[in-house]
Amino acid sequence: MLIPDVVLAIGERMTYQESFQTRTSGRGTFDITREVEQIVTCSGISSGICHLFIHHTSASLVLCENADPSVRTDLERFMARLVPDGDTMFEHTMEGSDDMPAHIRSILSKMDLTIPVTNGRSGLGTWQGIYLWEHRTRPHSRMVTVTVMGD
Amino acid sequence: MLIPDVVLAIGERMTYQESFQTRTSGRGTFDITREVEQIVTCSGISSGICHLFIHHTSASLVLCENADPSVRTDLERFMARLVPDGDTMFEHTMEGSDDMPAHIRSILSKMDLTIPVTNGRSGLGTWQGIYLWEHRTRPHSRMVTVTVMGD
Amino acid sequence: MLIPDVVLAIGERMTYQESFQTRTSGRGTFDITREVEQIVTCSGISSGICHLFIHHTSASLVLCENADPSVRTDLERFMARLVPDGDTMFEHTMEGSDDMPAHIRSILSKMDLTIPVTNGRSGLGTWQGIYLWEHRTRPHSRMVTVTVMGD
Repeated sequence: MLIPDVVLAIGERMTYQESFQTRTSGRGTFDITREVEQIVTCSGISSGICHLFIHHTSASLVLCENADPSVRTDLERFMARLVPDGDTMFEHTMEGSDDMPAHIRSILSKMDLTIPVTNGRSGLGTWQGIYLWEHRTRPHSRMVTVTVMGD
Repeated sequence: MLIPDVVLAIGERMTYQESFQTRTSGRGTFDITREVEQIVTCSGISSGICHLFIHHTSASLVLCENADPSVRTDLERFMARLVPDGDTMFEHTMEGSDDMPAHIRSILSKMDLTIPVTNGRSGLGTWQGIYLWEHRTRPHSRMVTVTVMGD
Repeated sequence: MLIPDVVLAIGERMTYQESFQTRTSGRGTFDITREVEQIVTCSGISSGICHLFIHHTSASLVLCENADPSVRTDLERFMARLVPDGDTMFEHTMEGSDDMPAHIRSILSKMDLTIPVTNGRSGLGTWQGIYLWEHRTRPHSRMVTVTVMGD
């Protein structure tokens, strides 16, 4: 009876998965570092990886400098110039002028992100924060799944 | 004799890896969601991650909206404007005017992609499909490796 | 006494994590394929994934063609045109004209990268190399953490 317990304990430590919802207020970056840190702590995993995934095609997950807010307004301004809303090149405009740009912005900034777990915490650099990037101009509810794996 | 069996069973469930080839018909996006789903099912893994990797530098793997095909033609048109074939800025033109653009497009859209596995299936959002994006104008055979890990 | 040994052996094989520092000479791409290969070998893991992470917001990790150096000079030239140093659009210029461009370049080319491990080696394609991409014009010391997981 001792053996199955030990075996199950290892199985449980290997993979921990949890999802959460974030309500955005429209286009912009939203800091989710604290939510992710809490999930890493809950997982009880000491060393491994933490995988983040957003289940949408018009919002993304990025690492960004976390000290000066102007970094993220500059980033937003850059992206708005790179992929302009209402560009006449786009056919897919069903949901408005920010519809297709939101898909392209998400592909360029990615919907998945993996960070290391070290000593039971996310191994982010000092200036790295985790941001959910809403690309639609209106508010949305966004679901993120976090999977922590390791020992 | 019972103990090694239990232990091996856990080892086997942890990591499942399989590669497949896709023949593209030239530049464009090719839906590989079904192939990936089948591999996740074969793995027998219930909760964890599924890592996809393309072993080339002129094709990539992306998540994209899977309902309206005009999303992917708009995406293609956008990328062709961002990284124009035959741009005189490029020195590396050995294999033609789409050679260097294919490398840059692959780096901007990435050759690796990781999605969650939940309840024995890939945890994609309703509108998310997995696409192999061929960046060369001529047909190519592309190899993708899928690694499923978890419990 | 046999059982805990077996169990621990599995635990140890699952996750192997190691960090290293690289000194860059300023903006450009630096081949770290050999360092990563050595860590994969040290891990003793035969089949699984290798996750790379750079703990900074002004340098990134990319896969790129490894045969013709002009691919990487073309890539550099493309990125310099896409995100120009000294663009008057940027407010965040505290550390100079390459400060904000370095953050944007890092977000577009990503700070995390995951490759498969197959037969005890990184499963890179023939023409794929792993590069640390320094986006600041001056030399920096950069920390990379490599986590290898699998059987």
